[in-house]
Amino acid sequence: MRAGIVVTGTEVLTGRIADQNGPWVSEQLLAAGVDVAHITICGDRPADLTAQLRFLADQQVDLIVTSGGLGPTADDLTVATVAEFCGRDLQLDPALEEHIAGIIRRWRPDTVDLDDGPTRIGIHKQARVPAGAVAIPPTGTAPGVAIPAVPGTQPLPAILVLPGPPGELQAMWPAAIASPAIADVVSRADDLTQETIRAYGLHEAELAETLRRAEETIPGFAALEITTCLRRGELDMVTRFAAADTATYGQLLDFLTEHHGRQIFSTDGSTIEDQLIATLDGRLIATAESCTGGLVAARLTDRPGSSAYVTGGVVSYSNDAKSDLIDVPAELIASRGAVSEEVAAAMAEGALRHLKSDVAVSTTGIAGPDGGTEAKPVGTVCFGVAIKGRPTHTITRRFPGDRERVRSLTTTAALHLVVAQLKRDRAAG
Amino acid sequence: MRAGIVVTGTEVLTGRIADQNGPWVSEQLLAAGVDVAHITICGDRPADLTAQLRFLADQQVDLIVTSGGLGPTADDLTVATVAEFCGRDLQLDPALEEHIAGIIRRWRPDTVDLDDGPTRIGIHKQARVPAGAVAIPPTGTAPGVAIPAVPGTQPLPAILVLPGPPGELQAMWPAAIASPAIADVVSRADDLTQETIRAYGLHEAELAETLRRAEETIPGFAALEITTCLRRGELDMVTRFAAADTATYGQLLDFLTEHHGRQIFSTDGSTIEDQLIATLDGRLIATAESCTGGLVAARLTDRPGSSAYVTGGVVSYSNDAKSDLIDVPAELIASRGAVSEEVAAAMAEGALRHLKSDVAVSTTGIAGPDGGTEAKPVGTVCFGVAIKGRPTHTITRRFPGDRERVRSLTTTAALHLVVAQLKRDRAAG
Repeated sequence: MRAGIVVTGTEVLTGRIADQNGPWVSEQLLAAGVDVAHITICGDRPADLTAQLRFLADQQVDLIVTSGGLGPTADDLTVATVAEFCGRDLQLDPALEEHIAGIIRRWRPDTVDLDDGPTRIGIHKQARVPAGAVAIPPTGTAPGVAIPAVPGTQPLPAILVLPGPPGELQAMWPAAIASPAIADVVSRADDLTQETIRAYGLHEAELAETLRRAEETIPGFAALEITTCLRRGELDMVTRFAAADTATYGQLLDFLTEHHGRQIFSTDGSTIEDQLIATLDGRLIATAESCTGGLVAARLTDRPGSSAYVTGGVVSYSNDAKSDLIDVPAELIASRGAVSEEVAAAMAEGALRHLKSDVAVSTTGIAGPDGGTEAKPVGTVCFGVAIKGRPTHTITRRFPGDRERVRSLTTTAALHLVVAQLKRDRAAG
Repeated sequence: MRAGIVVTGTEVLTGRIADQNGPWVSEQLLAAGVDVAHITICGDRPADLTAQLRFLADQQVDLIVTSGGLGPTADDLTVATVAEFCGRDLQLDPALEEHIAGIIRRWRPDTVDLDDGPTRIGIHKQARVPAGAVAIPPTGTAPGVAIPAVPGTQPLPAILVLPGPPGELQAMWPAAIASPAIADVVSRADDLTQETIRAYGLHEAELAETLRRAEETIPGFAALEITTCLRRGELDMVTRFAAADTATYGQLLDFLTEHHGRQIFSTDGSTIEDQLIATLDGRLIATAESCTGGLVAARLTDRPGSSAYVTGGVVSYSNDAKSDLIDVPAELIASRGAVSEEVAAAMAEGALRHLKSDVAVSTTGIAGPDGGTEAKPVGTVCFGVAIKGRPTHTITRRFPGDRERVRSLTTTAALHLVVAQLKRDRAAG
């Protein structure tokens, strides 16, 4: 089973916003055993969209997923273009029309033209579904559409049409792949298992070298489909394999653990956030950030329910803020510098105290592009991890890249440091 | 002039890393007046790459730019695949081979197999250039290739082959578009101006309706190429036009300002961050965040040099943190609720005081998915804006969508509220 993904939208094509849907849908399809052969991006010109649909159909993909172009306005043309491509008429779905109107009524109760005027025209347009297709209920206001494959001498793949806003598309995904036209494709996909190993502090080239040796050592290695990827400073390795090759994957896992056991932090797909929550084990965490400016706190509070373990944080960007909010002595900043392990320790301890927490992590560094010195070049970051009743742990790291990369790598490093320190603390009893 | 962009790489196709090259190259081409019709992404399978090249040539683009697949290893096949597609033999360029060897000699002076073995084999591979093509000197170790267009009955577009690492690709871009085969395409492109209007609080459907009326009113409207895009709660409208249509764009701008003057906050491409820095005008800003958990502070400190105007912030996620760090009275939280304008005001005022700032903004709300009530459903957010020596301004908003969307829309709203309040304050004298 092979699929193609079509991302529409002039704003994506022209580079003004980065596409999130292609990669996300690709990951979901892969996880369901459907191989993605092509992702294509076009603007809001129907002729270009039609050309891409024709290209993918000619490539004999079994499924096309499109994103975008489902809005209420006249330039949103995906459903009409796809319907024409499939030779299907558009038919009004009155129940769907009322469903969309109901959503707008709840969200924007003051919409005056809900029963008449531009809003009603838009709803009417959005409630038109190609003949023989099934609507996917909207989570925003734009419904999706699932069109069954057509077998025969001029076959057409199944086509799943979804909206562009990533939040809407993702929320609609479970219903979309459960709809009969799409479920039929997925049910015929290979039943592959996908396993993820995550490492931190391991270079891609080192892993590549180890995999080369594994290939020589492990019989049947070629049956494993391995891809590796660096993301926010972590190295993920995803392996897909059939049930018959489970033992081979087990051998690979042993081989990797033997060589990189210290760097591999997850073999069950769990993320560093999952592990942080598990190692916190009911304790409360706080942050004190300088160069990351709130990114560590934002990442910790990303998850629903994070108020159960995050008390809060301090973004002590200025030196005054470090002293005033969390008692970092001004003399310490003056003598050691704001970017120093001493200040990082004082920040973590101050946050621990002021935010009545059990654990606190701090970052202070030089994100750049300015502010670097010979002794402390851009990318230098000091961290502190304070655990109630224990000596505070500090470390200095140096990260490559531009401001955004340094801030992102620092955020990931902060989470890994906390987990490592909590585990060490637990091991020490 | 139309172009297509081909991004190669299994890691991009499978969604494990986000492609940066498609959007970047697209923006460069647009700036040079070359319209991008299609971006396509494929893995490391030569047949899929060939299919995409064939598709783009069939679409009669004038230029194809590829990224990726230029490494020294056997699975990097872009140059060989493109050469075969064009019917050109690969020829060794000895000067290029020595150039690459020289780079490796400088970067990794301890490479033992530079004159023999895998490294030399890799260099030899990378120094092979399609007949009639021109090499683009590498900034990493992978050279690019520029292949001239072929006119005639079976025409082929010009093809520019560039490496995958975004830093390398971007550094090689100036030399790439200056190479004769590519410069020839660019010289024939239209010279278009691009203008951006940004609005906040304007619905896409309203703008669409206004544009429909503008089309009826303004002669020559059709010559303007308009795209609109919602991003983080803001509505951007980008218009491209030739020099001869400048007056028409002026009329459109007047028309839009007349109808949506209150919502349009930028007509010169400036962002809300630019305007915040301008309206702060040397004053210092601080944040007090609950539901956004650090995102407002992170966005404010995104920019190099932000320490000149950001003192810091407090992520007062727990009620204790609100009371302990920034003096929000516990009784106030108990009587009005943590999500209330009274608490938002106390948060902003506390941050203003404790972070010794001139301006402070606060957010407290229900990001969801849990925690909503009938009176304060998920998406309800209270804001406070405190300006030194002025009464504190508060407002309650309700945002649609999931947790991530509510947090993102809240962050954007916070910046707009600060700018609006500072402008109102200035107008009040």
